[in-house]
Amino acid sequence: MNLKMLSKQSLYTLVHDSDSTKGRLFALSIQLLIILSLISFSIETLPDLSALQRSYLHYIEIAVVILFSVEYLLRIYVAKNRLAYIFSFYGTIDLLAILPFYIASGLDLRTVRLFRLLRLLQIFKLFKYSKALQRFQRAFNLVKEEMFVFGVIAMIMLYLSAVGIYYFENAVQPELFQSIFHSLWWALTTLTTVGYGDMFPITVGGKIFTFFVLLVGLGIVAVPTGLIATALSQTRTEEDKKVEK
Amino acid sequence: MNLKMLSKQSLYTLVHDSDSTKGRLFALSIQLLIILSLISFSIETLPDLSALQRSYLHYIEIAVVILFSVEYLLRIYVAKNRLAYIFSFYGTIDLLAILPFYIASGLDLRTVRLFRLLRLLQIFKLFKYSKALQRFQRAFNLVKEEMFVFGVIAMIMLYLSAVGIYYFENAVQPELFQSIFHSLWWALTTLTTVGYGDMFPITVGGKIFTFFVLLVGLGIVAVPTGLIATALSQTRTEEDKKVEK
Amino acid sequence: MNLKMLSKQSLYTLVHDSDSTKGRLFALSIQLLIILSLISFSIETLPDLSALQRSYLHYIEIAVVILFSVEYLLRIYVAKNRLAYIFSFYGTIDLLAILPFYIASGLDLRTVRLFRLLRLLQIFKLFKYSKALQRFQRAFNLVKEEMFVFGVIAMIMLYLSAVGIYYFENAVQPELFQSIFHSLWWALTTLTTVGYGDMFPITVGGKIFTFFVLLVGLGIVAVPTGLIATALSQTRTEEDKKVEK
Amino acid sequence: MNLKMLSKQSLYTLVHDSDSTKGRLFALSIQLLIILSLISFSIETLPDLSALQRSYLHYIEIAVVILFSVEYLLRIYVAKNRLAYIFSFYGTIDLLAILPFYIASGLDLRTVRLFRLLRLLQIFKLFKYSKALQRFQRAFNLVKEEMFVFGVIAMIMLYLSAVGIYYFENAVQPELFQSIFHSLWWALTTLTTVGYGDMFPITVGGKIFTFFVLLVGLGIVAVPTGLIATALSQTRTEEDKKVEK
Repeated sequence: MNLKMLSKQSLYTLVHDSDSTKGRLFALSIQLLIILSLISFSIETLPDLSALQRSYLHYIEIAVVILFSVEYLLRIYVAKNRLAYIFSFYGTIDLLAILPFYIASGLDLRTVRLFRLLRLLQIFKLFKYSKALQRFQRAFNLVKEEMFVFGVIAMIMLYLSAVGIYYFENAVQPELFQSIFHSLWWALTTLTTVGYGDMFPITVGGKIFTFFVLLVGLGIVAVPTGLIATALSQTRTEEDKKVEK
Repeated sequence: MNLKMLSKQSLYTLVHDSDSTKGRLFALSIQLLIILSLISFSIETLPDLSALQRSYLHYIEIAVVILFSVEYLLRIYVAKNRLAYIFSFYGTIDLLAILPFYIASGLDLRTVRLFRLLRLLQIFKLFKYSKALQRFQRAFNLVKEEMFVFGVIAMIMLYLSAVGIYYFENAVQPELFQSIFHSLWWALTTLTTVGYGDMFPITVGGKIFTFFVLLVGLGIVAVPTGLIATALSQTRTEEDKKVEK
Repeated sequence: MNLKMLSKQSLYTLVHDSDSTKGRLFALSIQLLIILSLISFSIETLPDLSALQRSYLHYIEIAVVILFSVEYLLRIYVAKNRLAYIFSFYGTIDLLAILPFYIASGLDLRTVRLFRLLRLLQIFKLFKYSKALQRFQRAFNLVKEEMFVFGVIAMIMLYLSAVGIYYFENAVQPELFQSIFHSLWWALTTLTTVGYGDMFPITVGGKIFTFFVLLVGLGIVAVPTGLIATALSQTRTEEDKKVEK
Repeated sequence: MNLKMLSKQSLYTLVHDSDSTKGRLFALSIQLLIILSLISFSIETLPDLSALQRSYLHYIEIAVVILFSVEYLLRIYVAKNRLAYIFSFYGTIDLLAILPFYIASGLDLRTVRLFRLLRLLQIFKLFKYSKALQRFQRAFNLVKEEMFVFGVIAMIMLYLSAVGIYYFENAVQPELFQSIFHSLWWALTTLTTVGYGDMFPITVGGKIFTFFVLLVGLGIVAVPTGLIATALSQTRTEEDKKVEK
């Protein structure tokens, strides 16, 4: 049994067949490991870490790299076409996630590991949610054209808002509305209704202009969201009808 | 009549049958009492209360606890299976809501009473809105998978936004964007468009990054809302069709 | 012709028949007059008005009151049942809008004129949009139950958010999160994503709590909007189908 | 071939037939030129530009004007009715975009070039998205009446919110809530949930009033967005049905 587990066929199942029990366990373990490595990566950015804490993080780092390396070698070993895997998108990311540790470069390339987050998307496969994902893709296809049209109009809207507010506010608040580029930041945070409050018009003209910008702009920024939602519910309804038949 | 009212059967109707007139009155009284106790609980958190005001609140507290105790004993008395009630979820909450007062513990366990807010949901039963609630449940079931997918993607989005802004802003605003965890707070308030204004990017790179974060992120955070709305209207339409048939 | 115009029947048409040309003109004039009186009322709140400007505003005020008085007397004159009009809702408002001027009371009752804004809604009748309004009413009826359920849940959500943030932030920011009532203001501005930035959590616990509040709360606050929108489009579709038949 | 390219017929195809290859190239070049001229126009608003950078921008300006002039002359040359083009909307804009440079007026009329952004909308034609645009127009037609009704109600809502908050806050914050007009700015940023944080109520009455304003107002401002989204998905569905038949 132990021997069989180490056979290439068996290892292939382990790595690639997320329907089998051990395949699921393997995939889940890798995902937990990715999350662990990202948490440890995030903790390292905390200021005021003690030397002890830093050493703990270093040990976790070593453990993560060793396990990632084992996984990488395993994936090469079981691959039907090894070169194809090595030069594939995921193969490159898997390598880049561990390489920096070995070559001890001055550059901190661990950021590459963020791409390993893509492996997290495998979670949908584990939970057999591929159908929901397919539905998403179809919904996005349905509204693709509308999204493009809205995208272009939203960009023009952003630009015109920035130019307008620049003319109204530049004279009074030259520090904040320094240029059209600075005003673009205001246009972005206003039209998305984030409204940090770091920049806002104080002239009467600027305030009235903002009124019109919001009147037209809210719709332009918010409609695409509604479009996706209705498209998604539409694809679900159509699917249900097919199932009924 | 008065005697009959005190019979166990009659009391059972009082406590559990919210379709009868006295059952409705009983349920409404309990709900008003819960709201009253929460208002008095909230007032107590006000600073600068006079001694007189505090004593009034104490009297209300005593009255509330006595009435809650009577209700608790009544519920035990009329229960078909008394132990089952005592150890049920609601039974435990009902007890915990009054116990702290009697055992005069140092700990203020009155917060437990917040759970009694759940009894407020009974209001839907009183107004015969159980149908609307069932529709909600069905609608949530319909979009369960989509919500999960969006939930995971939103978490990844939040994390990536935090990492990105950390790299752009940490050097310039080390006090605010101290670590990835601190940046997560920025990502949360920005993607939900709350925008308190306690943290915002000031570098050109950070602002352009925010542009892309909002471009992608707004949809991810806002689409689920639209999904629930369309699912709800769908279940209502289907129900109406059944009624027509 | 001039004489005929002053006949009671003709005046009735003028005041009440917004389908006739002169009726439309009369209604539009009254609406313009209401808007004018509100603008003048708003201008009066401006500080630093010169004596000259104040006197101009006073003249406008006199003109408005005279015209409103003529309108009021006209409405009484043409009413089929005069007492019914005088004691009707609109009749009372029409009187209260002019009375303060005549009795020169110390109290400024001109705020009552805000109710005259209701007459502005007549504009929908002028543009024959009563159908759209009826559709609105039907749509609101469709989602009445859902709105009530969401309303109650939103209130509970608001309250629980306030209690939670009070426990997390009161110790660190006692000035801002003074009591549960003060925290309710934070809960309101956060759940509606207004986010003024006057109050926000600074403790780690408070920030994580805010994350969960927004996770659940955004949906609760935003879903009703989506419900009304889908209900409106549904009623429109149904109407179109009837028209086709 | 070279000669043929210069024939009037051939030039007409170049300028107006965006289905032909060279027509597409011409249209795209003009659009890129417009974007370039706008970027250079935006850069000029940056403070602290060096003399060298200013001279570069001046060279770009000259190049842009020359190319725009060539385009303008070309459009006149190929026009079937030359006067009709010159006095058409686009003809006027095309002229105004270059004229200021030649007549060297004191006034900076280059802002007129913003209108040339309208030419950018031609991009939808290039990508054969006219169908999506037509769908938009039909969707807007569908909800025209609802939008008007909501528009009027939203204006009344804004005004009433401003009046209300003025009464609550003017006494306590006379600097911020100076008049109803100043309060309108607060009403706008609050109802659209932008919430800059430059103005917010601090009295208990003002905060409770804000609660009710948001309760009613959020729906009024947000529903139109949902309306457009559902109307758009409806027109798409209807179109699909026609295609199926």
